Amino acid sequence: MEVVQVLHMNKGAGETSYAKNSKVQSKIISITKTVIEEAIIELLCKNLPESMGIADLGCSSGPNTLTVISEIIDVIYSKCSNLGCPIPELRICLNDLYSNDFNDVFGSLPAFYNKLKEEKGRDFGQCFITGVPGSFYGRLFPRKSMHFVHSSSSLHWLSQVPLGLDSKASTVINKRRIYLSKTSPQSVLDSYMLQFQKDFSLFLKSRSDEIVPGGCMVLSFTGRKSMDPTAIESCHQWELLAQALMNMVSEGLIPEEKVDTFNAPYYGPCAEEIELEVQKEGSFIMDRLEAFEIDWDGGVDMPNTINGTLSSGQRVAKTIRAVVESMLESHFGRDIMDDLFQRHVELVDEHLAKTRTKYTNLVIHLVRRG
Amino acid sequence: MEVVQVLHMNKGAGETSYAKNSKVQSKIISITKTVIEEAIIELLCKNLPESMGIADLGCSSGPNTLTVISEIIDVIYSKCSNLGCPIPELRICLNDLYSNDFNDVFGSLPAFYNKLKEEKGRDFGQCFITGVPGSFYGRLFPRKSMHFVHSSSSLHWLSQVPLGLDSKASTVINKRRIYLSKTSPQSVLDSYMLQFQKDFSLFLKSRSDEIVPGGCMVLSFTGRKSMDPTAIESCHQWELLAQALMNMVSEGLIPEEKVDTFNAPYYGPCAEEIELEVQKEGSFIMDRLEAFEIDWDGGVDMPNTINGTLSSGQRVAKTIRAVVESMLESHFGRDIMDDLFQRHVELVDEHLAKTRTKYTNLVIHLVRRG
Repeated sequence: MEVVQVLHMNKGAGETSYAKNSKVQSKIISITKTVIEEAIIELLCKNLPESMGIADLGCSSGPNTLTVISEIIDVIYSKCSNLGCPIPELRICLNDLYSNDFNDVFGSLPAFYNKLKEEKGRDFGQCFITGVPGSFYGRLFPRKSMHFVHSSSSLHWLSQVPLGLDSKASTVINKRRIYLSKTSPQSVLDSYMLQFQKDFSLFLKSRSDEIVPGGCMVLSFTGRKSMDPTAIESCHQWELLAQALMNMVSEGLIPEEKVDTFNAPYYGPCAEEIELEVQKEGSFIMDRLEAFEIDWDGGVDMPNTINGTLSSGQRVAKTIRAVVESMLESHFGRDIMDDLFQRHVELVDEHLAKTRTKYTNLVIHLVRRG
Repeated sequence: MEVVQVLHMNKGAGETSYAKNSKVQSKIISITKTVIEEAIIELLCKNLPESMGIADLGCSSGPNTLTVISEIIDVIYSKCSNLGCPIPELRICLNDLYSNDFNDVFGSLPAFYNKLKEEKGRDFGQCFITGVPGSFYGRLFPRKSMHFVHSSSSLHWLSQVPLGLDSKASTVINKRRIYLSKTSPQSVLDSYMLQFQKDFSLFLKSRSDEIVPGGCMVLSFTGRKSMDPTAIESCHQWELLAQALMNMVSEGLIPEEKVDTFNAPYYGPCAEEIELEVQKEGSFIMDRLEAFEIDWDGGVDMPNTINGTLSSGQRVAKTIRAVVESMLESHFGRDIMDDLFQRHVELVDEHLAKTRTKYTNLVIHLVRRG
């Protein structure tokens, strides 16, 4: 569990903050928007509740947090207006780990509520936004209290690094390079696959207690199209980080055993693995599963406040840094972070000059059985 | 509203933090413990809900925040054990203003949950603790979702400084000195009394929507025994701060108009004023109202981590500083804070050498009509 406790997006609003470097995640949110819209409309057409429970799991902090909520509210508002129905009381729960920067999220709520009142009018109804800290691999909400649960860019994080990994077998990062060469030890592959199965099934079980019959979830996360867990598409982002770390080992800046004991609690599953767990758990019907690809840099320009336009490598490296830095820092120490990520930028630039690289993302729509 | 937005207890865990200087508030919590216990037992005897909504309004951060929650859980646990009933699912909502240090509160939750599991056993049942940011002078929770609402040391803060105060009539702090001399303009007195009535009645109306019939509230706050709003007992703490500020004006360290435009959004009501608003609003039965006195320094020794034992004046000044500094700082600037509170310490020491001084606190138990 220790590793997960230090997994949080970079706080604040500085140059390396998640708030300023979450354009890829924002792009993913905009791609999944249609799926969210259709899921909510289907939900409201079946049964319009008086009070509607909505949750965003792994909400993080920064601009994306309230963008998702804003979109969800927009869909509910316009659907209810079309139907001539009163808008339900909205109970909106923002969830992330205990270490998430909830102060940042709460600080932006007054402006959010004011905008809501302005845009939707005073008779919009009641909307209560709360913070629910804790791991989504376990119960978070009261029984049968939720109607719509959303999660984006979070479920590829495992609850922990699989126990009992042979640390001498080199790091996961290196193991993942070994995967690619198809010589990865089967025991390591199995450990990661089992951890994913255990976590995802606990996730489904927990949500099945919390979601009302007919309620639903829209989940998107990094995964892969291939059945093969050693496929590069789901672990691109670790490859070049591993190279940067190993370069520092070769220069004597990091002891090799430090890298050997670093394991990322990360797994990008394929559609078949998801389907199997949904079937085994049994409470949800899989209404939709789609895979889509997204450019490493989200295909968007990020303004560089210092030197004009950033290189692709800089953009990609900044996005990855905002997400993984807390985890690397707690293992390797704060001092080497700037050096590490500078090397990473260069490797990413070289890589992108040769190959255009994409993340594979999966989005699924699950409906709670009646 | 502006003043309220900067009203938050001093953050973090440093020497001037609220976390390290909240012994008086902690003493108040321990005095009101019996009232809380009896209220909860009465509630559970009437009707044991399957899922129980509990809120702490103005929860702040630091050790007191989870102490109250822990006491409430203890009472529920032991009562249910005695009755041989299953423990309800607990939905615990921690409320304070948007600027409260919720990160601090959430950071201490993992240890809190672990302690709960250890002490009460794994079959304790579900307990969900959430953060609900916003002003309690307005709706915070869904309709009929709460069973027990608690608030300590918060309701003497108004939602805002009354509008239309003649700033040239000198500051509230000075006005309060004028109150004492019985020459305070009636218009200022009236503005404050009206603001209190408006706020407290909105508080009751909001809670009446949220609390189930038979549910209840235990509220404690600074007030007065006297009917006279100019009585010293409810505004002691402002007196010496005003003197310290005026000393700095006389030395040219603060412009006088800066003091003239400072107004504290504070009102310490008497029992009769409370009773009147409860009656007017009509949703609650006042089951109990008690006044108690508490020493300025909480009657407890505070360890001084630097110089052994603190003087009474230092203890009192530190307690007051932790609460009002954010408000004073946003008006007067950060630079003068140390000087101001140093002067304040001296004035409090002089004062306590002459007179033993106490706060008057009121505690009330209100039951939602069926």
